[in-house]
Amino acid sequence: MISAVSPVAVIGAGLIGVSWAALFSAVGDHQVRVWDPSETVRADIARRATAMVEQLAALHDLTDRPLTICDTLEEACAGAAWVQENAPEKLDLKRDLYRQIEVAVGPDTVIASSTSALVWPDLAEGMNRPSRFITAHPFNPPHLMPLVELFGADVAVIERAKAFYERLGRVPVVLQRPAPGHIAGRLSAALWREAVALVADGIASVEDVDKALVNGPGLRWAVVGAHMGYHLGGGDGGIQHYLATLGPSQERRWASLGTPSLTPEVRAALVAGIAEEAAGRPVDAIAAARDTATIAILNSLRKQPT
Amino acid sequence: MISAVSPVAVIGAGLIGVSWAALFSAVGDHQVRVWDPSETVRADIARRATAMVEQLAALHDLTDRPLTICDTLEEACAGAAWVQENAPEKLDLKRDLYRQIEVAVGPDTVIASSTSALVWPDLAEGMNRPSRFITAHPFNPPHLMPLVELFGADVAVIERAKAFYERLGRVPVVLQRPAPGHIAGRLSAALWREAVALVADGIASVEDVDKALVNGPGLRWAVVGAHMGYHLGGGDGGIQHYLATLGPSQERRWASLGTPSLTPEVRAALVAGIAEEAAGRPVDAIAAARDTATIAILNSLRKQPT
Repeated sequence: MISAVSPVAVIGAGLIGVSWAALFSAVGDHQVRVWDPSETVRADIARRATAMVEQLAALHDLTDRPLTICDTLEEACAGAAWVQENAPEKLDLKRDLYRQIEVAVGPDTVIASSTSALVWPDLAEGMNRPSRFITAHPFNPPHLMPLVELFGADVAVIERAKAFYERLGRVPVVLQRPAPGHIAGRLSAALWREAVALVADGIASVEDVDKALVNGPGLRWAVVGAHMGYHLGGGDGGIQHYLATLGPSQERRWASLGTPSLTPEVRAALVAGIAEEAAGRPVDAIAAARDTATIAILNSLRKQPT
Repeated sequence: MISAVSPVAVIGAGLIGVSWAALFSAVGDHQVRVWDPSETVRADIARRATAMVEQLAALHDLTDRPLTICDTLEEACAGAAWVQENAPEKLDLKRDLYRQIEVAVGPDTVIASSTSALVWPDLAEGMNRPSRFITAHPFNPPHLMPLVELFGADVAVIERAKAFYERLGRVPVVLQRPAPGHIAGRLSAALWREAVALVADGIASVEDVDKALVNGPGLRWAVVGAHMGYHLGGGDGGIQHYLATLGPSQERRWASLGTPSLTPEVRAALVAGIAEEAAGRPVDAIAAARDTATIAILNSLRKQPT
């Protein structure tokens, strides 16, 4: 932490951008320059980041480095070794930003996009130096959730990215080829499709589906992944035994899963079910309780012998 | 805990049966009588239950009540107020057991099946008093994982079941109609299908899919369910806003999810990927580390203000 740490530019200060900025500065000791096109947004960045730094204090030893809020993209990018872009999920908007960023930074600066929905080939098209461009998708909120999903065309840049995010206590994974939704978004969509089907087909309420997930497979997946779970389910014979004995029944189960549509009726059932589950608690109160529990879990897992 | 607690019969002493027996006796203070058709299995029940009770000591105040191992089903069932059946997932075998159990117990005894794959209507067919029969599926291992998924035809029996399992620190959910795999098994199958597709389609390795799950959505789902997650993803507008703005893109994502088959090539990729992820650790060592981490998480969540 004593050595000079490279400056980082954060482009776009929505939830993801401010969360990254808090992590980069307070945990990574980076000089962080944040820019957002909205003056109203810029005026509130410091306050929002401070709340996140308070959460980070429960997980990390922090440095006391203030953010620099910039009025222009060029000012934020000047001298940056790393750019984390967090603009809305609009291809043309992001491409336009990359044109401006490429002019404002040096040739070795890595430009990382937090995009959840867009893919590297579409985003990189038209860049002067696409080799230094990567997608680096965090799981919201990035200052608390360890996952960062990486894809890029240059192995050396991906290695730099792994080191950059690992130094911040993140857990990077590298996609072998780009996919919309990366890994986590696709797994989430697959699970939610069945969660919606269970409600649409009248098998269980919204609240009971969520309760089952949180107290069963979700709790399990905070500890071991789905593949490893089936390996353990195979007993001493592991995944090989599982596939040999229960592979065919899994394929039948897959064929029987729901394929719901978000019809007006299904949407109404989801909205009513969430109202029941939320029981009057506003979104920000539920999110705050979620963050508190996430911090407690992260601390409890860190204390485990590995 | 001072009042007399009803005796419970545990039928079938595989992993699930012994885990239930440990919970019923050490946490619930029930008199527990365990039967398994195999003499070899019976001889090892006490040792296996003791290891589970040691894990439970980290989570609960325990009673010091020994299990009774019985040589016959009739002996285990005599005087039982509750029967938990944990036989292999074979319909004829289970139906045959229910015929024997119904003769051995009184008319008000609840017969609960731990079945994961079979459904209530098939199992209850042929019973003399199907109204007292329920499916009560735990998430493995039942002494640690809170979820119990209930279905039955009689509302009063379901209410008794909820109280019975809640007293043991479990979180019961009630299905509105029976479904193969209940809730958790269907959610798990839906997620694993995409996890297999990500490997089969060359997007990510087995290990990276598991790492992404554990450090992203899995960690999230230990705290809030999938429906609630999308509610929070909608910001102040909640699920209604999410559905209005991102519903169509979710439906497109659903349509783009993988539909893998467990071909020999895919099986080989899963087996090789697990070998890489396990890195030489045997199944029982990974399972023990999983249990230790699960206990730590459960303790950390219990300390949260709700």
